[in-house]
Amino acid sequence: MVVDAVDPVALGQWWATALGWTVVNDDPGAFEIQREPERLPGIIFLPVGTAKPSSKNRLHLDFRPDEQEFEVERLVDLGARRVEVGQGVVSWVVLADPEGNEFCVLSAAAR
Amino acid sequence: MVVDAVDPVALGQWWATALGWTVVNDDPGAFEIQREPERLPGIIFLPVGTAKPSSKNRLHLDFRPDEQEFEVERLVDLGARRVEVGQGVVSWVVLADPEGNEFCVLSAAAR
Repeated sequence: MVVDAVDPVALGQWWATALGWTVVNDDPGAFEIQREPERLPGIIFLPVGTAKPSSKNRLHLDFRPDEQEFEVERLVDLGARRVEVGQGVVSWVVLADPEGNEFCVLSAAAR
Repeated sequence: MVVDAVDPVALGQWWATALGWTVVNDDPGAFEIQREPERLPGIIFLPVGTAKPSSKNRLHLDFRPDEQEFEVERLVDLGARRVEVGQGVVSWVVLADPEGNEFCVLSAAAR
């Protein structure tokens, strides 16, 4: 999975911390993290010159932790922010990473 | 991984065929495919009212098959099209799925 980033190292490090994943390539041209080395899929952060537009990303990631509320709080403490993308009242929480990429934290029950 | 789609069933079926993955939820509101049932990550296709804008997706998928040329031909035969996103002369091939979502087919050597 590939993510365009203004600052691939900063954003990649942020996601490594957020997910508890390992940096397997610290090259700013192709900064990559994996859950553990050689375990695909990884997430690669590529440098681009433009910031994310305000429109919602067409692709995003969902996470389903055991403890939704705890994880949301942890991610917000790390620098994620709650965002409004027209989701209304739902069981999941929509967050954005430091470059504005939306992702969702589901409740454990959601399926 | 979640993909916004104008026609989630058609797009999800397309990707299931393209990847050889299994449909684990055929609900048009949350059409999901997985490599095999219960094996995460899956790809969920959600209905949205708007088509993909012409700008390149901020997030995309890369695939690294053993036989790049064979896979590109197979995917184009399935309905993928080659797209130009300013990649220049590179070792990978940029394709777009039927709704225009870009993805890359890497050469086996690329790392």
